[in-house]
Amino acid sequence: MNGSVIAKDPGSTFRFDPLIEIGKRLLRREMAHLGDPPVTMVMGNGSTIYSSKGKSVGTIIFRDQKTLMRFLVHPELHFGDAYTEGNIDVEGDLVEVLASIFKSMLTASRGGLVDAYRAKIISRPRLNTLSGSRDNIHDHYDIGNDFYRLWLDERMQYTCAYFPAPSVTLEAAQIAKMDHVCKKLMLKPGETVVEAGCGWGTLALHMARHYGVKVKAYNISHQQVISARAQAKAEGLGNAVEYIEDDYRNMSGSFDAFVSIGMLEHVGAQYYRELGQVIRRSLTENGRGLIHSIGRNRAEPMNPWIEQRIFPGAYPPTLREMMEIFEPSGFSILDVENLRLHYAKTLEHWLERFEQTKDRIGAMFDHKFIRLWRLYLAGSVASFTAGNLPLFQVVFAHPDNNDLPWTRAHLYTEARREEKHGLL
Amino acid sequence: MNGSVIAKDPGSTFRFDPLIEIGKRLLRREMAHLGDPPVTMVMGNGSTIYSSKGKSVGTIIFRDQKTLMRFLVHPELHFGDAYTEGNIDVEGDLVEVLASIFKSMLTASRGGLVDAYRAKIISRPRLNTLSGSRDNIHDHYDIGNDFYRLWLDERMQYTCAYFPAPSVTLEAAQIAKMDHVCKKLMLKPGETVVEAGCGWGTLALHMARHYGVKVKAYNISHQQVISARAQAKAEGLGNAVEYIEDDYRNMSGSFDAFVSIGMLEHVGAQYYRELGQVIRRSLTENGRGLIHSIGRNRAEPMNPWIEQRIFPGAYPPTLREMMEIFEPSGFSILDVENLRLHYAKTLEHWLERFEQTKDRIGAMFDHKFIRLWRLYLAGSVASFTAGNLPLFQVVFAHPDNNDLPWTRAHLYTEARREEKHGLL
Repeated sequence: MNGSVIAKDPGSTFRFDPLIEIGKRLLRREMAHLGDPPVTMVMGNGSTIYSSKGKSVGTIIFRDQKTLMRFLVHPELHFGDAYTEGNIDVEGDLVEVLASIFKSMLTASRGGLVDAYRAKIISRPRLNTLSGSRDNIHDHYDIGNDFYRLWLDERMQYTCAYFPAPSVTLEAAQIAKMDHVCKKLMLKPGETVVEAGCGWGTLALHMARHYGVKVKAYNISHQQVISARAQAKAEGLGNAVEYIEDDYRNMSGSFDAFVSIGMLEHVGAQYYRELGQVIRRSLTENGRGLIHSIGRNRAEPMNPWIEQRIFPGAYPPTLREMMEIFEPSGFSILDVENLRLHYAKTLEHWLERFEQTKDRIGAMFDHKFIRLWRLYLAGSVASFTAGNLPLFQVVFAHPDNNDLPWTRAHLYTEARREEKHGLL
Repeated sequence: MNGSVIAKDPGSTFRFDPLIEIGKRLLRREMAHLGDPPVTMVMGNGSTIYSSKGKSVGTIIFRDQKTLMRFLVHPELHFGDAYTEGNIDVEGDLVEVLASIFKSMLTASRGGLVDAYRAKIISRPRLNTLSGSRDNIHDHYDIGNDFYRLWLDERMQYTCAYFPAPSVTLEAAQIAKMDHVCKKLMLKPGETVVEAGCGWGTLALHMARHYGVKVKAYNISHQQVISARAQAKAEGLGNAVEYIEDDYRNMSGSFDAFVSIGMLEHVGAQYYRELGQVIRRSLTENGRGLIHSIGRNRAEPMNPWIEQRIFPGAYPPTLREMMEIFEPSGFSILDVENLRLHYAKTLEHWLERFEQTKDRIGAMFDHKFIRLWRLYLAGSVASFTAGNLPLFQVVFAHPDNNDLPWTRAHLYTEARREEKHGLL
């Protein structure tokens, strides 16, 4: 993004180093596995250790031998760690460089090369038991509302927005996302909704205000719940929305709709069947549900750097894996939409705002924190752009619910229910 | 539908018969397993052998002891056989009676009762090998175009239609279905399409005429291919559409779109991975695909009567099972829509036309054939209405295809591509 933190020293280019020669050979083999991504790799002294056959989109700089060797041992973990420490740097557009690597890996995986490579990776996600989930969620979401406020939209939504057109602002796209979800849930005034993993509580308030429903919203992030309750009180919606600091597994009551936006990534595949049972006992006969989650096109372990440094315990499922929530519990799937490019666009906005406010973030955290978050946000833009990660919205109901709209046209042609029902 | 073929004999109501007493006891246990469906069951002599606690929606009449005993041994097979033979009859609305039984079974299955019951059922679908498929498809689709012409829409589409509103005619709904599919596939003039299982060739002609594409369409039903070729010639589309009498596994070439409407039910789950490979080698880099198929909400064996008497080798998959086509081949799912109530409506139209033309059908086939088809059509209306069977349209593409519309609004707001592209 900016100038490299590693000062290159071209004077030392011609020294012969047997360790570096071995490193170069291993690196070339590694890059061949990844489909020969269109980048250049150099040592801090300026010597080139890898260059792709195609046109290079950027340069990756390794500070020293030790950094290169650590990278070769476990690239998917140590690239991020070394970048965070400032021992690896990237010249050129960070998103473009990462996207070109991901795209290259995806193409290579079609030939089965990356599959064999990935089988080597040992992944041990942290367990999402009741107490494990609390620790995992605390690590990411409780680092400070002030930090998230700097680069999220004004209503603090830390999930994929919905852009009716790519030019729409982030603020408008986050509102459009909430309306898209509410329309998919076919909410009617007077109905009740339960939300699992409510973030800073924005969707619950939106549903109550604009769709006339009562919402019970669960979250195990203490800071988020405190903030959500204050917001509900400030907006005079304390009676319509109840925020509960508890695990989704402890949900109680019977509701007309279940909704969960961006929580499933933290649930863990071994708990999907239980989640399905929780939803089943929570939904009325004609109840509808919606789960919104990052997914996978094929089952793969989570990138270990993201899992260990950003989202402990996280796992994005394939649709096949998600069906473990719905099929054993006897739900019927009504609608699945993949919003992948909407998440790429959302993340572009976040990254731009993050860079714009990095001086203020720098006053709150050290430079390693900024580099870690930059890599995480840029890597996420790249992943969704390159096609590594889909974003699924899945709508479901009991199979014998015939009280459904004939088509999905109402998602695109209808105004908000409040207008339809004369609530405005 | 009409008066019973079994003459009741009330004079003999009071005879005591130990075998019937045992049958009654077994029947009550069976009905308890099925959730106490709201029907009455009587013997041909008029004696009641089962009545539900709730209000009865109709009466099932068993001609004699032997019929009852055979039914008790394997109800899911012998109900249909005995109905076909005229040894079981139904008084009241056939669809309503069947739907009430299916609905009751679905409710019971939530308590796990039917699951245990179903585990008893042995299901051995006929294999869909290359030659097995040919036999299986011949049995159902080659019984005569003249027969199907009597009760399908004028363009002979034997798959779920799409009703923009429930009041739309079957003819219009079948055209709307083809447009819905073409819009989902984002067809552009000049592109190429491959179709697996093209029926009487209607969709291929529609695509060529209204979307300006070239289509290669596969089918292993001899009679359908002959009819499709004649139609293409008659409509002057012989150059745009090529019908090939061959198995989908022998597809060759590279195409911008893959489409398959109502074939997957005949593929068999053990061939899904191979189907995925066939599609992968057939699609260009930015290619799109759509599979339209009857599904299941949870994995269950096919109803054995349907499998043995109507659709040999058929198996409707759950979404989880369908993912075996897409995930190992590295496709990304873009959209899933469940058109269950559209199939119920389509089947209602078919059943109504079938009943209206049954005299002409009677001139072609015997009365057993009519009873078999009536039960099959009525049972299908009942299944889709009660929620047993979903109908999935799944849209997919390579994961890195970014040449996609931002939203699905074009499915609901746009005119046909021909109008957009000025082809009209």
